[in-house]
Amino acid sequence: MDIKMKYKRENNSNSRSSIFGRIWFSLRMFLFSVLSFGPMPAHIAFIMDGNRRYSKKHNVKQGSGHNVGFSALISTLQYCYELGVKYVTVYAFSIDNFKRKPEEVQSLMNLLTEKIDEMLEETSVVKEYGIRVNFWGDLNLLTEPVRLAAKKAMAVTAENTGPVLSVCVAYTSTNEILHAVQESCAEKNNSMAVGYSNGRINSSEGLLSVADLEQHFYSASFPEPDIVVRTSGETRLSNFLLWQTSFSHLQNPIALWPEFSLRYLVWSILQYQKAYPSLQEQRIRSKKTH
Amino acid sequence: MDIKMKYKRENNSNSRSSIFGRIWFSLRMFLFSVLSFGPMPAHIAFIMDGNRRYSKKHNVKQGSGHNVGFSALISTLQYCYELGVKYVTVYAFSIDNFKRKPEEVQSLMNLLTEKIDEMLEETSVVKEYGIRVNFWGDLNLLTEPVRLAAKKAMAVTAENTGPVLSVCVAYTSTNEILHAVQESCAEKNNSMAVGYSNGRINSSEGLLSVADLEQHFYSASFPEPDIVVRTSGETRLSNFLLWQTSFSHLQNPIALWPEFSLRYLVWSILQYQKAYPSLQEQRIRSKKTH
Repeated sequence: MDIKMKYKRENNSNSRSSIFGRIWFSLRMFLFSVLSFGPMPAHIAFIMDGNRRYSKKHNVKQGSGHNVGFSALISTLQYCYELGVKYVTVYAFSIDNFKRKPEEVQSLMNLLTEKIDEMLEETSVVKEYGIRVNFWGDLNLLTEPVRLAAKKAMAVTAENTGPVLSVCVAYTSTNEILHAVQESCAEKNNSMAVGYSNGRINSSEGLLSVADLEQHFYSASFPEPDIVVRTSGETRLSNFLLWQTSFSHLQNPIALWPEFSLRYLVWSILQYQKAYPSLQEQRIRSKKTH
Repeated sequence: MDIKMKYKRENNSNSRSSIFGRIWFSLRMFLFSVLSFGPMPAHIAFIMDGNRRYSKKHNVKQGSGHNVGFSALISTLQYCYELGVKYVTVYAFSIDNFKRKPEEVQSLMNLLTEKIDEMLEETSVVKEYGIRVNFWGDLNLLTEPVRLAAKKAMAVTAENTGPVLSVCVAYTSTNEILHAVQESCAEKNNSMAVGYSNGRINSSEGLLSVADLEQHFYSASFPEPDIVVRTSGETRLSNFLLWQTSFSHLQNPIALWPEFSLRYLVWSILQYQKAYPSLQEQRIRSKKTH
């Protein structure tokens, strides 16, 4: 995206029309242009961990942490897109999270509906950057209002040609793999059923390949994440994009998600650039194998 | 394992019969007994990264790094088993590694054969601790001498009741998952084939579950790793146990694998103990879901 275009957009944006807003924007653009001398990620994934701990730490009610977390997400999306990162994927709600207290789950579902609706407002970052929004996961597990909001957001933004935001809700990686396996098996079984009825069965017909599975992933047409950032200093993947992050650079800043700011993002990219040569070597070798 | 028993074993062991050996052993035992006040891992997995960089750093021929790396593995195994860690899994050779230069691959295959044979010698750590050795991966991809050595090691140690060492060779996680999918599909297809011939097909019969897949993993009867250590400061998983490490604590010490020593192991366990409460909470929630 052209920096001048973005600057024009910045000037049109009310929130950044102050003199401080302009100075901050110029400094950021300078920083980003320096950063872009190195290899830049095309896809960054975030495990937004620490919203509840933020509420406890600041002694506020539980939803507040998630609200501040949503603001952190919006700023992060903006920085990523300014940096030219085409794909951002976030882990918003795991299937395992349904096992939390019912009132907490309900309150998170309400918040999700509200935030998805907000994303479609005229002044939102989605409109500003022409973002295409995806939701990855078993949407049938969501409450009806969230499912409808998610489907509406996908339909409304489907033709957008800007960056892509993928939100993992009611998602686990093992569930995604299983879903892909089931879809691939169904395909194979159908072709085998025809084979049975025609009396022509080839033993290799039932064998699935990596490509068979991958084409049924939610992430089928996406590049794999270059960086996975998990906040709160936790270092596990918690069933998030396990298959796709095999050659991703993992970063674990100590900040809780609502505290995640530009400096952590820049640091993650610098660390990725440092690891890039060996990462790239492994990726190329892996592609030759598959 | 009883510490006195281990002490007796230490005294019998030639390599530790010196006065310094005894002092070092006593200090280690003291350290381990302090550590064991916290939750202890049952399974630690290692991505032994940095052998080639070690050779370059010390300006020695390539195989030397792997040789020193093997010594580091033996010490690490010993410390793990002294700590009461029942399962150790190591990533020795990825399927992608076959894409390295043919002479390098051949030299690594020779080294593997030699080291597997060494593991079965009378004075080896395998004999000392009564270790059961497994090899995980597509063993058909290995050269014949390595495959035979691996099969012999598994057969010879199959009845051992001590700790378990699993060595991933010709392994990638996506290959393991695919292998499990194919095995599960074959099972389902067989039962469906019977169904077709009996004219009784139920649409749910073809659906695989997480449990179907997991029972066909190499790691089927093993607990998931509590800690994954990848040396050399790299933070990616490189297609190693992706499915099984979803709730593992990842550690990335800066040391190259041949430099990996007790202090890095102890630090990894301390970090695991610090992360344990949230890790455990997530694991319990995940188990409820499946």
